[in-house]
Amino acid sequence: MKIILDGHGGDYCPEQAVLGAIQAVQKHNDLEIVICGNEEVIQPILATNYNGNKISISHCTEIITNEDVPTIAVRQKKDSSMVKAIRMAKEDSSFAGVVSAGNTGALLTASLFVAKRIKGISRPCLAPSLPTVIEDKCFVLVDCGANADCKPINLQHFAVMGSCYMQSLYGVSNPTVAILSNGQEKGKGNELVKETYPLLENTKSINFVGNVEARDILTGDYDVVVCDGFSGNIALKTIEGTALTVMRLIKNSIKNGSILQKIGGLLIKPAIKKLKSTMDVNEQAGGTVLGVDCIIVKAHGSSKAASICRCIEQVIMLAKNNVLQKIKENLSGIEDDNEV
Amino acid sequence: MKIILDGHGGDYCPEQAVLGAIQAVQKHNDLEIVICGNEEVIQPILATNYNGNKISISHCTEIITNEDVPTIAVRQKKDSSMVKAIRMAKEDSSFAGVVSAGNTGALLTASLFVAKRIKGISRPCLAPSLPTVIEDKCFVLVDCGANADCKPINLQHFAVMGSCYMQSLYGVSNPTVAILSNGQEKGKGNELVKETYPLLENTKSINFVGNVEARDILTGDYDVVVCDGFSGNIALKTIEGTALTVMRLIKNSIKNGSILQKIGGLLIKPAIKKLKSTMDVNEQAGGTVLGVDCIIVKAHGSSKAASICRCIEQVIMLAKNNVLQKIKENLSGIEDDNEV
Repeated sequence: MKIILDGHGGDYCPEQAVLGAIQAVQKHNDLEIVICGNEEVIQPILATNYNGNKISISHCTEIITNEDVPTIAVRQKKDSSMVKAIRMAKEDSSFAGVVSAGNTGALLTASLFVAKRIKGISRPCLAPSLPTVIEDKCFVLVDCGANADCKPINLQHFAVMGSCYMQSLYGVSNPTVAILSNGQEKGKGNELVKETYPLLENTKSINFVGNVEARDILTGDYDVVVCDGFSGNIALKTIEGTALTVMRLIKNSIKNGSILQKIGGLLIKPAIKKLKSTMDVNEQAGGTVLGVDCIIVKAHGSSKAASICRCIEQVIMLAKNNVLQKIKENLSGIEDDNEV
Repeated sequence: MKIILDGHGGDYCPEQAVLGAIQAVQKHNDLEIVICGNEEVIQPILATNYNGNKISISHCTEIITNEDVPTIAVRQKKDSSMVKAIRMAKEDSSFAGVVSAGNTGALLTASLFVAKRIKGISRPCLAPSLPTVIEDKCFVLVDCGANADCKPINLQHFAVMGSCYMQSLYGVSNPTVAILSNGQEKGKGNELVKETYPLLENTKSINFVGNVEARDILTGDYDVVVCDGFSGNIALKTIEGTALTVMRLIKNSIKNGSILQKIGGLLIKPAIKKLKSTMDVNEQAGGTVLGVDCIIVKAHGSSKAASICRCIEQVIMLAKNNVLQKIKENLSGIEDDNEV
């Protein structure tokens, strides 16, 4: 299998991107990786750390930074590592997909304009895996930020794509799909949720279980949580902010507490560390752009080698399980459902 | 000062409502409380626990339960403790306000139909106080659930009312007001946020500081966070859900950890307990219905006496600082701003 890696864009790239690629080819014998990026910078890192022949470099003259305005950058920096990575994957079907830790907005824009939408999808979305209270069980929140304003049909597409995604990435059969709402009972919600509800009820290819309140999304009872990108962004960032806050409050409370509490704090450090990695969105799988005709995984901006390697393995998994084919088949099904 | 208390509705009412009223009159010499409720049930509790003359009962024959449909209950149960409490406060201006731990939807409905809107306000909202990382510093989230779909003018009203509220309840002068969005930069947001932003910029009576991302609402840097009730509900419940999840994960991790970790867990118990009460929305002030012509405080459904007493004190504070007058003055100001 061949995968393309955007060598630039993340906080610790290109070093960690290259090291992540090395980890991946060492773990997977049949894997080849092409790193898009500045050869002069990447070649020495590669030469120092790897002497195999499974990683090659495709030279690019430009880099998209986090300060770039997505639409302008994608239009103007045609020889950037990100745009070139997606173009290569799109043009050469021997590539299974792309990993990038770069500017999220630019990656979404490049996905849309270079990889193009899957027929029938008007709004691709960004699907991150989030932790639950159940160990090693994730759920996917679609959309978590690509589309601030959505129509019911967009949410229906997110539901179908999220469902195919959970099957392909985690092997969940018949994943439960819920819509994020302000109450669990049917009939609760804003206009968008109320209009989307019957559409999801009538979508035969998904296992729709109704509304879910935001307080219950981490319980592990839901595999796919559907919402517009604005609400999804609020849920996602509230989880991050609250988890950080709670851990800081515990730390402060121990720091300002009695000597016994301070000792207790030292003793539970491993537990807190484990928790930190559970709640850390960076430690989860990368976010995947769903709805474009290419497997594109967004690694977190602060990814180090291990996380880049996990994202590469995510592309392998999604490609092996034919996620794009699955999405296309299920989408053609919902057109029939909607006509009934 | 005279305050009306809905004697029924909460999980531990009427007992805890009565005990809360007793706590309040014992703390505040000039306070009188009228409890609306079933005299046959409430009188014995009162007689057993109190022999003063500052608490009286106004008998009602009906009770609104959590299973009642709000609009139907408010229309049909005219002699319910909740509806009667609000009607009495509305008709007799010697009452400073109302506290109820009952059905939130019914309380909002009764507030709207019985207490009536303040002139100029089309959508009253529910304003809960939420904790921040800074000890004893709260912020208010408006709206947190009364209005699932909003227009920019509604959000402008929430901003002005939230600002008056923070001044009156916590004595914050010139409170910072931010709008909840999916990015901090100006220009980020869904259509509603983008349309509301310039309105808030032009509202002279508030100290508008721009967008706030959901991950930053608990930092204590913002006094008032404005949003539609759907997004507010998601933020509020994600905070609750995440805080619970993090605490459960810590507990599990300690439970399944080494003996040293278990000992550590025992030692930090006081810190965790303190944290629990900081993050527990029930421990904060009650939610206040803003935008109706009466001070109405919603105690949490699971309130015990101490929490009921705090909500009564919240009415005292809001009444002493003329929150309704402040809101009316500031609202008349924004009509001029909007015309510019």
